[in-house]
Amino acid sequence: MGYIKTPVKGMNDFLPEDMRLREYVTGQIKQTYAKYGFSLIETPAVEHIENLTSKQGGDNEKLIFKIMKRGEKLSKEDITDSSALADSGLRYDLTVPLSRYYASNMEKLTAPFKAFQLGNVWRADRPQKGRFRQFTQCDIDILGDSSILAEIELVSATSAMLTKLGFEKFKVRINDRRILKAIAEKCGFPAEDYDKVFIILDKMDKIGAEGVEKELISCGYPEDVCKKYMSYYTASWDNCNEFCSSFTDDLSASTNIEMIISCVKQLNKGDFDIVFDPTLVRGMSYYTGTIFEIELEGYGFSIAGGGRYDDMIGKFAGIKVPACGFSIGFERIITILKDKGFKVPTEDEKIVFLAENGLSKEQLEEMFSEATSLRNEGKTVMVTPRNKNVKFQKDKLIAEGYTIFKDFFKNTK
Amino acid sequence: MGYIKTPVKGMNDFLPEDMRLREYVTGQIKQTYAKYGFSLIETPAVEHIENLTSKQGGDNEKLIFKIMKRGEKLSKEDITDSSALADSGLRYDLTVPLSRYYASNMEKLTAPFKAFQLGNVWRADRPQKGRFRQFTQCDIDILGDSSILAEIELVSATSAMLTKLGFEKFKVRINDRRILKAIAEKCGFPAEDYDKVFIILDKMDKIGAEGVEKELISCGYPEDVCKKYMSYYTASWDNCNEFCSSFTDDLSASTNIEMIISCVKQLNKGDFDIVFDPTLVRGMSYYTGTIFEIELEGYGFSIAGGGRYDDMIGKFAGIKVPACGFSIGFERIITILKDKGFKVPTEDEKIVFLAENGLSKEQLEEMFSEATSLRNEGKTVMVTPRNKNVKFQKDKLIAEGYTIFKDFFKNTK
Repeated sequence: MGYIKTPVKGMNDFLPEDMRLREYVTGQIKQTYAKYGFSLIETPAVEHIENLTSKQGGDNEKLIFKIMKRGEKLSKEDITDSSALADSGLRYDLTVPLSRYYASNMEKLTAPFKAFQLGNVWRADRPQKGRFRQFTQCDIDILGDSSILAEIELVSATSAMLTKLGFEKFKVRINDRRILKAIAEKCGFPAEDYDKVFIILDKMDKIGAEGVEKELISCGYPEDVCKKYMSYYTASWDNCNEFCSSFTDDLSASTNIEMIISCVKQLNKGDFDIVFDPTLVRGMSYYTGTIFEIELEGYGFSIAGGGRYDDMIGKFAGIKVPACGFSIGFERIITILKDKGFKVPTEDEKIVFLAENGLSKEQLEEMFSEATSLRNEGKTVMVTPRNKNVKFQKDKLIAEGYTIFKDFFKNTK
Repeated sequence: MGYIKTPVKGMNDFLPEDMRLREYVTGQIKQTYAKYGFSLIETPAVEHIENLTSKQGGDNEKLIFKIMKRGEKLSKEDITDSSALADSGLRYDLTVPLSRYYASNMEKLTAPFKAFQLGNVWRADRPQKGRFRQFTQCDIDILGDSSILAEIELVSATSAMLTKLGFEKFKVRINDRRILKAIAEKCGFPAEDYDKVFIILDKMDKIGAEGVEKELISCGYPEDVCKKYMSYYTASWDNCNEFCSSFTDDLSASTNIEMIISCVKQLNKGDFDIVFDPTLVRGMSYYTGTIFEIELEGYGFSIAGGGRYDDMIGKFAGIKVPACGFSIGFERIITILKDKGFKVPTEDEKIVFLAENGLSKEQLEEMFSEATSLRNEGKTVMVTPRNKNVKFQKDKLIAEGYTIFKDFFKNTK
């Protein structure tokens, strides 16, 4: 059988320069989240097929890389049905494994539990620019805290991390699924259609209020219902409470949002913006309360998103566990930093020892002894044979950040 | 379908305290190998099934987690043959992916290329104590260097890393497959039986020279051949060259070993030992030259192993590429450190803010403002709701390294 040189379709080999950037970003994220008291945890890449297909993953459940049963479990009878061939699969997100993890380890964890995950996920998506079949996700979640302390901590930590990576002028948009639902209810949309209505509303920044109204009407909803619906979204308001007062007496969700915004604003000293956005929807239907998203000026996509999902962990744990999470688009951040020509800072002096071929024992000892001394002083020393084309060799090493070259025993033989 | 709380068989959920140790060890390894000029690279977890079953993986090829074809590739006809169902699998080591990576990216890499990999591999092994189905491997490899600079760098870097992790009194054993073969040839064993003979010789530390001789004879080899064979291994010698002179005039392999030993000895200042061991075998038949292994006093297994494999990379790359690598047993090191009661050093002050339920906007602002100031000073601050059972809560947090607790607005309402 022949060998295949390229990586599996849609997956990446990372070159040393790619890794330097990824390691730098990873390091900054870990440092920041640790300061906020989040604990790094890890779950296996492989998850039970039952958990992956438990309807928590939305459309991602269609994209599972399934792993075949092994040995006697793979009996002849199974082979008649392809779905019976897999007993596990690669995780497509970090949220389903987190739910399982929490249910399994709850008693060993602090309560509330502030989890930080950084790991690969796999989706058999159609490969396209900037979308990969193996990619890194980075999530923070607070489990067991129903108060807005969770939201404030998640937004603060994520914003601090983005600031640390040099991002400016980003905007945190915040909304609450309960507000979205209250307006839809007030206008008389059927409850089972809410998600469908919200998906159309979500397009408002692209097609405008008129476009949303038109599309809702074209879906068969009565014109007066649609007009009334849009009137709330086109009205002018100064703050979330004012916006909500026009359709409800229950201001608990909007008071939460006001408090989150005022706390975060007071902390950020103008580095970034946080605003209430009543048209923010977020795709996943498992959200139950606050939702948030971060967008960067000049980019047409969000670089982070999350929200409160109070009903999901309980399905695994068997008891109700409030939960709120924020996920950053790790690969998007890498892509943006690359586009911006970001250079990873290097502190250490990087030295190359170019060794002639066939050095004597004494020469080798002398060279390695010097290398060891420099390394003990904290310097990076690459000991490598001197190539025939030494100019080409040096160019490559300079591109890797090496600045000092020392020949060992050239022309001494 | 029900949810399953436990991780997939043989794989681990890592708790925050597990992760702290793993992250610390990972950090020390990365720092050390960087100083030696090794570049971190990464390949996908998923590899082509053709590459995984190319006879480079030895027995590991029987332990592949196979990934099913998706969509139209999984047609009805395929289902008659279970082996046609998989087009990829999870990597079982980092060496096969490295070969593919090098063949694919050769022109973009420095030559020689000093690769460092740290990643998970998967083997559908029978789960048992200390053996997992997902585990971390950590390899350094030098590709494109046929000189002993490679061996010296690999042994020095690995030893420096172990010393940095606090290991003492470890022993590097070194041998050369060419020496093993020369003796077997001299004694008249058939060439196709060498590996079988070496596997028996490998037991010498357990069953003694007499035991090895007995087992060889019981395999049907002539008694005089076996006796002659063992006479070389029981003879006394002062150094590798002296040992080899008794059966060969070609001292190139033994001169290499002498030079490696003398260079490494001169660097290590007695922190550890490096010795020639003519009975060292190493399992994988792809080794072509030097082989080495590190063992720790008091443990019956090696914690690192490697050697030169000059023929393997070429099978992927299409041109001959000399290669030498050293792999450390990451999970074994973790287990030993745990057994030794190793404590991860913490530098930062870790503070907990215990927040009363229902704080006002002003109180929240005050608390978060103080948290931000402390975090900006480099301190870790966990803001969390004060639980009813605050003693239990504090105990858990103390176990996580938090030392300072501050109540926010207790009894002020």
